Amino acid sequence: MSDERLRATYLIETARPLREAASAMAGEQSSGTFVDVPGETGELEARHGARVEDLVELDVADEPSLPGAAEPERSANPEYRRARVVVSFPAENVGASLPNLRATVAGNLFELRQFSGLRLLDLELPDSFTRSCPGPQFGIEGTREIVGVEDRPIIGTIVKPNVGLTPAETADTVAEVVDAGLDFVKDDELIADPPYSPVEERVEAVMDVVRDHEAETGQEVMYACNITGSVHEMLERHDAVKDAGGNCVMVSMNSVGISGLLDLRREADLPIHAHRNGWGALSRHPLLGFDYAAYHTFFRLAGADHMHVNGIRNKFCESDASVVRSARACQAPIADEDDRVMPVFSSGQWAGQAPETYEALGNPDLMYLAGGGILGHPDGPAAGVAHIKQGWEAAMRGIPLEEYAETHEELRTAIEYYGPVGSGR
Amino acid sequence: MSDERLRATYLIETARPLREAASAMAGEQSSGTFVDVPGETGELEARHGARVEDLVELDVADEPSLPGAAEPERSANPEYRRARVVVSFPAENVGASLPNLRATVAGNLFELRQFSGLRLLDLELPDSFTRSCPGPQFGIEGTREIVGVEDRPIIGTIVKPNVGLTPAETADTVAEVVDAGLDFVKDDELIADPPYSPVEERVEAVMDVVRDHEAETGQEVMYACNITGSVHEMLERHDAVKDAGGNCVMVSMNSVGISGLLDLRREADLPIHAHRNGWGALSRHPLLGFDYAAYHTFFRLAGADHMHVNGIRNKFCESDASVVRSARACQAPIADEDDRVMPVFSSGQWAGQAPETYEALGNPDLMYLAGGGILGHPDGPAAGVAHIKQGWEAAMRGIPLEEYAETHEELRTAIEYYGPVGSGR
Repeated sequence: MSDERLRATYLIETARPLREAASAMAGEQSSGTFVDVPGETGELEARHGARVEDLVELDVADEPSLPGAAEPERSANPEYRRARVVVSFPAENVGASLPNLRATVAGNLFELRQFSGLRLLDLELPDSFTRSCPGPQFGIEGTREIVGVEDRPIIGTIVKPNVGLTPAETADTVAEVVDAGLDFVKDDELIADPPYSPVEERVEAVMDVVRDHEAETGQEVMYACNITGSVHEMLERHDAVKDAGGNCVMVSMNSVGISGLLDLRREADLPIHAHRNGWGALSRHPLLGFDYAAYHTFFRLAGADHMHVNGIRNKFCESDASVVRSARACQAPIADEDDRVMPVFSSGQWAGQAPETYEALGNPDLMYLAGGGILGHPDGPAAGVAHIKQGWEAAMRGIPLEEYAETHEELRTAIEYYGPVGSGR
Repeated sequence: MSDERLRATYLIETARPLREAASAMAGEQSSGTFVDVPGETGELEARHGARVEDLVELDVADEPSLPGAAEPERSANPEYRRARVVVSFPAENVGASLPNLRATVAGNLFELRQFSGLRLLDLELPDSFTRSCPGPQFGIEGTREIVGVEDRPIIGTIVKPNVGLTPAETADTVAEVVDAGLDFVKDDELIADPPYSPVEERVEAVMDVVRDHEAETGQEVMYACNITGSVHEMLERHDAVKDAGGNCVMVSMNSVGISGLLDLRREADLPIHAHRNGWGALSRHPLLGFDYAAYHTFFRLAGADHMHVNGIRNKFCESDASVVRSARACQAPIADEDDRVMPVFSSGQWAGQAPETYEALGNPDLMYLAGGGILGHPDGPAAGVAHIKQGWEAAMRGIPLEEYAETHEELRTAIEYYGPVGSGR
């Protein structure tokens, strides 16, 4: 690893000369300090220093995007210049460690006064680093094998209401969607192991339903049981899920952290469904925090198998362009095909977004979750599931939804109810 | 716990009617969903629903602070109203779980289109919840006992250069500052267990120095060894630190996550020094993310003993007011005195900020870290340490620094070199 470098791409905004600001950033995150101290030799800097590898000027803003930046040099018209900067770090500085990678590429630098904007856009890691990480255990292929769905998205839903259901009530809700023909069902991120619904009881009740359905139909539905907790709690709950015949565990990534996920992955025998709640705090301002392409890398290499990316025309604030970039990042190999993870589309989804989603990705290697788009279908949940399958058939065959709807009743009803095509739920 | 509620205070900005927007927030994070689904009964909502408890209107902005908010109702002059909102959640929804507390109070809501700004300011937790959390094992008193410093701040520094030193070189650097009379020395957040400086070798080399110094002088210096990694790595490293006679471990909170810290705390016999690198991404925009008062609660209750808060007139972008609020939050009890943690002041510190720091807190229960303020002192590191002790003596006795400097040479030299008083390094 000794000569290898990892590269991080940033969007920056600064009132200082761009190259000077970029150098400050590289200095802060490697062998830099703002005073002369003994021991900081040229040799050490050559071996351990970060380097600005590339800098592309972008637009200029009249006002700083974020407060707290140092006042620009005396000027009647201060300008806040934006640039795309690539900084490389010696891989040796970090070692084979995702938690320490984050401290290096996304540590103190967000607070530097040289910047009125700083966002980590992307990471490029040497194969030796990537291969030292666990990565997804199941990924896209492993998940498809469990549910036996090969040539279309895995279609799923979320147990609702999101809090308050007892294990028996949860199982009843799952029974309904399983009967409707879904491939996948998950807990909400707001329920993990509360006193009114312990994981052990909930997963037993739900898996009874799932296994009965499998015995009748041959189809194994995947149930992502939310086991978020401390690491030892997650490992106990993982085992409870496995003992009950469960086939997936879910965690809130931003709660368990990179280290928490690494240790769950180390012991896990089941796919890990990674929910990104809290992501907005890290991403919503365009000149602060992270693009998902960079952020998801930490958790993906730590072992997530499925990663939430929101959906086209979602009910949240994220743009479609951002959703598509995120999903493409999940599907792109880092070191090899096996480290690809399954993007999870959700929020306001019905068949209406299938054509654009397929067009954006060129493949159906994703989870497509719908709540109201399935349970709210006028002819019931089975028609809800059917209309989404029909929508994806049409999208993958290049047939306009309205045309396909002429011969597919559930899709026709859905377009009348949720539509027009091109809208969100 | 069944009737208890936890309360979260937010700063919001919205173009929608304030009460409507606040209700949407409460709905999203409890039993709310945007479609009517079976099972969502009045009874469930009464038991599990979040409630808006208080709403205080603040100022009005002409433009949205964050992009992605839903367009306001047709209006020639849309207004973005700001408010401070308190939302309460049934404690039963969460259970005794810090990771799931985060998913509830700081989950999807940052992405809601109803808001052009949303920041979590503070948390108020029932004692039953707080007492179910491990909390700090050493805190302020336990840390003071180890270093034997009672009536002034614990004065420390950071090993520099921050990357690239071998274990032997690190020990040499530590020897210098230990000889200078420091109480505390820590690794940089950029070095944990890289190939050129494995924790085991580094801590052995450093603790030899520390224990020799103790044998000579009777004073035990605390060395915070950065063990950031996966949980099993951190536990192995913690044991290596302990076996080498070490007395503190350090972690990057945002890398290890709440769950990672909980499991380290569960097995740890040493104080945990929590570094907040990456905090800027979560906090720098004033209408997004977290105030430290809320954020630090998760990691403090998970088991951190010392928590970084930046410093007065720091070299980063944070305001002094924010630094003071953060430090006060660390020092304020949550359920009781034992859960207080030691705020760690650093960045650009010398004696010059001691008076304001003491005035803001009214006590010296803190760590005061200086790099250039100690190592850069014209008369060497021992004079650097002495001048900071003198500055704090003056501050605690209410004597102006300039006056105290008349009879204290190291302080006098420092004021000439770093000053004037009222400036930062």
